Amino acid sequence: MHEIREPEFQPSQRAQQAAGQPIAALMDQALSRPDLISLAAGFVDQVSLPVEPTRTAVDALMSDQSSALAALQYGPSNGDRQLRAMLIERLEQTDFGGQPRMISPDQMLITPGSNQLLYLIGDTILDPGDIVLCAAPTYFVFLSILKNLGARAIGIDSDGEGMIPDALLEVLRELQKSGDIKRVKAIYLTPYFDNPRGVTMPLHRREAIITIAKEWSRERPLYVLADNAYRELRYDCEDIPSLLALDDNQQTVVEIGTFSKSFSPGLRVGWGILPPALLQPVQSQKGNLDFGSPYFSQRIMAKILELQLYDRHIATIRECYQTKRNAMCAALEDAFQDVSEIRWQRPHGGLYIWIELPEYLAAGPDGRLLETTLDEGTFYVPGEYCFPSEGTSPRKNTLRLSFGVQPPEQLHQGVIALRRALDKCM
Amino acid sequence: MHEIREPEFQPSQRAQQAAGQPIAALMDQALSRPDLISLAAGFVDQVSLPVEPTRTAVDALMSDQSSALAALQYGPSNGDRQLRAMLIERLEQTDFGGQPRMISPDQMLITPGSNQLLYLIGDTILDPGDIVLCAAPTYFVFLSILKNLGARAIGIDSDGEGMIPDALLEVLRELQKSGDIKRVKAIYLTPYFDNPRGVTMPLHRREAIITIAKEWSRERPLYVLADNAYRELRYDCEDIPSLLALDDNQQTVVEIGTFSKSFSPGLRVGWGILPPALLQPVQSQKGNLDFGSPYFSQRIMAKILELQLYDRHIATIRECYQTKRNAMCAALEDAFQDVSEIRWQRPHGGLYIWIELPEYLAAGPDGRLLETTLDEGTFYVPGEYCFPSEGTSPRKNTLRLSFGVQPPEQLHQGVIALRRALDKCM
Repeated sequence: MHEIREPEFQPSQRAQQAAGQPIAALMDQALSRPDLISLAAGFVDQVSLPVEPTRTAVDALMSDQSSALAALQYGPSNGDRQLRAMLIERLEQTDFGGQPRMISPDQMLITPGSNQLLYLIGDTILDPGDIVLCAAPTYFVFLSILKNLGARAIGIDSDGEGMIPDALLEVLRELQKSGDIKRVKAIYLTPYFDNPRGVTMPLHRREAIITIAKEWSRERPLYVLADNAYRELRYDCEDIPSLLALDDNQQTVVEIGTFSKSFSPGLRVGWGILPPALLQPVQSQKGNLDFGSPYFSQRIMAKILELQLYDRHIATIRECYQTKRNAMCAALEDAFQDVSEIRWQRPHGGLYIWIELPEYLAAGPDGRLLETTLDEGTFYVPGEYCFPSEGTSPRKNTLRLSFGVQPPEQLHQGVIALRRALDKCM
Repeated sequence: MHEIREPEFQPSQRAQQAAGQPIAALMDQALSRPDLISLAAGFVDQVSLPVEPTRTAVDALMSDQSSALAALQYGPSNGDRQLRAMLIERLEQTDFGGQPRMISPDQMLITPGSNQLLYLIGDTILDPGDIVLCAAPTYFVFLSILKNLGARAIGIDSDGEGMIPDALLEVLRELQKSGDIKRVKAIYLTPYFDNPRGVTMPLHRREAIITIAKEWSRERPLYVLADNAYRELRYDCEDIPSLLALDDNQQTVVEIGTFSKSFSPGLRVGWGILPPALLQPVQSQKGNLDFGSPYFSQRIMAKILELQLYDRHIATIRECYQTKRNAMCAALEDAFQDVSEIRWQRPHGGLYIWIELPEYLAAGPDGRLLETTLDEGTFYVPGEYCFPSEGTSPRKNTLRLSFGVQPPEQLHQGVIALRRALDKCM
């Protein structure tokens, strides 16, 4: 009696908006060819992962029966209190000259990675058709989240210092004229060593953008989502205060952090510091999603901080990535010194280098370069995936390289392979 | 220049639907009084949590450098392959007489707890206004998820064997008459020792419900969401095949499991086995949410299974909960033997006992009993929270007790306190 023809499944509107991420297809293609030297994935260096610190922390956590039992139980839905307090304390040291209690641990929410926090914030502040202003180019995974939520992403011109405040103002004025200003809910930034460009926003721009956000918050809040995933991965120059440190009444900035790049993506602990108005709604949303993040990982990270193993590990990986950054930059200088039309900027941190090719060369899936590069044994993320669908036009002559995964020699080989591919296409 | 009046934040439609979960307020109230003997929370027994097995598994995982490094890296977005394969193998042993390859590990998705899987499935199959048919009473957290998604929950009459197939058929026919049938997307069940009633659906009902779901899948799929969170917590009688085992073409049942009740909620590893049509959309949704679940916890659980520590732990906690179930049942028998109007059913597993009081007694937040019970030093989950807002009317004279958290003596004291409260209100 079960022999009934199968009816077709119609996904929800939101699920339909989740489909067809272009990067997924590219990654699948690449994974099927393990001989390739991937310069695409934004993963962290496998051999630098913190085996010893994690083992030490787990041992400490599990050797005390009561802390072991607690770590295996449900935790608070907004996250481990000790971990939140220590993260806030770090931030106070870094950004507030050690002044205590500038921020309450209750303003912080722990998530399994910062990606979930981006999703939760988006889901809480955005209705379909609402607008987020992003630097162009920007973190492409966030663009997928916005698409999933049915929101619009508008790209704002950016340069070697990130989003350009005047360009932001101009777009805001246009949106006011068109009447769409009431749909603008947030500005999204990756202010440190951004993904995909590797650029860091200097202090004066941070101040300018906060000022603009507050001025344009008269009718409704215009939040600034500051995604600081790469802040700890600095190899040169001095640290710059976070956007949160510049938000005098803490009503504007959502500060987003993660241990995924600076420690371990497998433990997957991220966090956000939220303006008070967002706190309860985002926590309710989180409650429906998963009740609270896995507690065991949070207790491990709290132990890592408590035993002062974190800064030591960061020092190690900074050295590791600095060497690789240097290797890739040297390889690029070598390989492209005779090609004046190719431009790139040496990043002071993070995992990425953004390459601008001559205008006539398309680096995307429709161009010949991507295929030729795969043939030559390497691949990259096409820059056009990093552009919002509105605003600044996608620059098809761009690509993102990552020096996170490969060892220096492979980075060198990868860049040489890219040069070979370029020679065939130019 | 920042002195601007603060505009009011207007949460998204979805976030507005997430607000105001009645249970949260109750829990907050209870947490502020640590002297209370809580018979409310569905948490697991703290002292029975698997400290030794977890320590053994983590040691094994971390003592091999390459497995340690892998566990600290990103994992596959659908979950650890070894873990999925072992879970499928277990299911094949239990439900398919050990016949291999009935189900592919590719049909399984790992989530941080089964709650996220419920959310993802809901988000993928339901548009606002769509309908899920639930037993009345049902798992109240799932009702919050449906509210959050803007979906309708319709309660179907249930008895000591769970949802009544004839009642389900009747509601389906009514919905066909009213034209709402096209909005009906799923039937939600907790077939083993359900939350909140503690009842298990016998085989013939499972078959009847699968048959109904398939018959009503002619125009569009009517999925059966089988939430098996408590399956491993059986204290008497024989196991019953899962709904998945009865779904001959695997197009209808979404099978949902978790280690949160049977091992550790702090590690937080859950899973779902999905009909092929749902797989890609749910995975895309998951990709936007968090990229994939924390890998370290998954590798720990895979090691637990590999080292055969899981079944040994289940045997321990079965004994522990059986003792507590017996203690609570004995206390109830003692305390209420002279009150013929109070009804409850001895559960064969799980963590809950459902109490039906005389019709005139309201156990909810509006009645005097809840407050009196708190005064007497204990509390429970009001049964009315477990009823969908449509269909079967809430039975305000019901309450849920849990024997998961408290030791036997406290269970006894809690039941006596409840009796004192009842005496004052009857």
